[in-house]
Amino acid sequence: MKSVMCVPNISEGRDLDIVEQVVDQVRSVTGVKLLDYSSDPDHNRSVISCIGAPDPVFEACRKLVAKAVSLIDMSCHKGSHPRQGAVDVVPFIPIDFPEADCAALAHRFGKWIGEELKVPVYFYEDAARLPGRQSLVKVRKGQYEALEEKLKDPAWAPDEGPAAFIPETGSIQVASRFPLVALNINLATNDLELATTIAHSVRHINGGFRYVRAIGLALEELDQVQVSMNLVHYVKTPIPMVMEAVKREAARFGVNVVKSELVGPVPLGAMEQVMTYYLQAHDFSSDQIIEKSLIGWS
Amino acid sequence: MKSVMCVPNISEGRDLDIVEQVVDQVRSVTGVKLLDYSSDPDHNRSVISCIGAPDPVFEACRKLVAKAVSLIDMSCHKGSHPRQGAVDVVPFIPIDFPEADCAALAHRFGKWIGEELKVPVYFYEDAARLPGRQSLVKVRKGQYEALEEKLKDPAWAPDEGPAAFIPETGSIQVASRFPLVALNINLATNDLELATTIAHSVRHINGGFRYVRAIGLALEELDQVQVSMNLVHYVKTPIPMVMEAVKREAARFGVNVVKSELVGPVPLGAMEQVMTYYLQAHDFSSDQIIEKSLIGWS
Repeated sequence: MKSVMCVPNISEGRDLDIVEQVVDQVRSVTGVKLLDYSSDPDHNRSVISCIGAPDPVFEACRKLVAKAVSLIDMSCHKGSHPRQGAVDVVPFIPIDFPEADCAALAHRFGKWIGEELKVPVYFYEDAARLPGRQSLVKVRKGQYEALEEKLKDPAWAPDEGPAAFIPETGSIQVASRFPLVALNINLATNDLELATTIAHSVRHINGGFRYVRAIGLALEELDQVQVSMNLVHYVKTPIPMVMEAVKREAARFGVNVVKSELVGPVPLGAMEQVMTYYLQAHDFSSDQIIEKSLIGWS
Repeated sequence: MKSVMCVPNISEGRDLDIVEQVVDQVRSVTGVKLLDYSSDPDHNRSVISCIGAPDPVFEACRKLVAKAVSLIDMSCHKGSHPRQGAVDVVPFIPIDFPEADCAALAHRFGKWIGEELKVPVYFYEDAARLPGRQSLVKVRKGQYEALEEKLKDPAWAPDEGPAAFIPETGSIQVASRFPLVALNINLATNDLELATTIAHSVRHINGGFRYVRAIGLALEELDQVQVSMNLVHYVKTPIPMVMEAVKREAARFGVNVVKSELVGPVPLGAMEQVMTYYLQAHDFSSDQIIEKSLIGWS
């Protein structure tokens, strides 16, 4: 079933009454499943995730954004997480849905925000329309506090909506991005330098796999180190290739892999690749999965 | 979602009007998904598979069996596939459902057949109540043609229903069995003896894995041989262990694996094991699969 996941982040993590009112907007739309939501009072931010067919997800996010904008006042917001708006980010994630269609959905959503809510919108990641805007870090540089000046700079004209600073709302960042797979691999050593060396070998910026971001971490309680990775396009840079590369790099130094962790949600397509690769089952398709016939059906 | 798959085989593969009427019974029950059905005129037999929550599947199979018994006359049945009844087998297969509960479901179903349809029922596989009845081959020995005599033998008293020979219907065989995984591994050699040797090494009867059945086959067009296996309990004898054992056995003779095939439906749990094993992701759960949240939901 063609599905889209969306994970809006709102700049409210303390007043749980407001959070509930915002989350209720997702609950109110038929055909959308609320997967999870959580609030962090230090960040003063809540993360809501939902999934469903593209149109109902669009509708649920429309209601969510409208409600959040009406209830959250950024002019007095404090929190330790970077943010630029009352609704800080709205990333749409294609699940069994073409990436280009998901980007188009994000654009349609941003356009709606600009026209109906009259709030400035920046597109980032795969929805970015300007090369400098792919990175959320760059788009959000200086955060909410710098937004008023940023909006006066023609180079930072918003992608949708007015180039006007609205103190209560700030700007809304809308993205389309491929589902990310978080893969951590623990090594049977406490040599942090080795983990860092391996992270550098496999990650894109140092010459490794194009869609891998990686760092070395010390796991002091376990007396181990970890190569902690984000695979940002598991189709083009598959999990098994990365796993085997880390294993080989560690083996060069006589170090074994103790275990790995896949953190958080994993798309079925990523599992399919693991089957295909390790079992050499080149023709295997996740359509063979019995449970897949029950998706989107009741 | 707790699901049960059921794959009734009926002794009609030529009169497709009858087959449609029988299949329609599955279509008529809400909460059951008809996965597939196919008819083989040589076998004069049709295989229907459906899935859903246990109660709706029970209801669909109840209607299917009643209709098939009313339409199919075994007294003039000819076909090349072994069979003992108008409805020859009704195997229930647990998917995310306890095996013991699935066996209980099969028993309840057989009881219903005996009481309502007054047809003799044999339980086999995990639903068998007598040690000699686990094997369908043994239960069906002599087939329909030997059934009249068999029913006179107290050792072959049916598990449910009357010990009476009903020429139009024969007996119905009801089972509960774990989902089977069909794994074929192609070797880079045309040495059939090697494939047979490896099949013997890994299969249960010769001292191999408890839940593996295997034979060696020649693939003449590919100039390869194949170790063709059924894994009858993928939880207790997991795919990756079998894959690696075949690979190691072949390597002992300097032979590589070219590819493998997973034939037909594969339970999600079997994929989970492949992830856990090869990625050393010991804590990975298929509950992390994004699409799993959409199962049984619309």
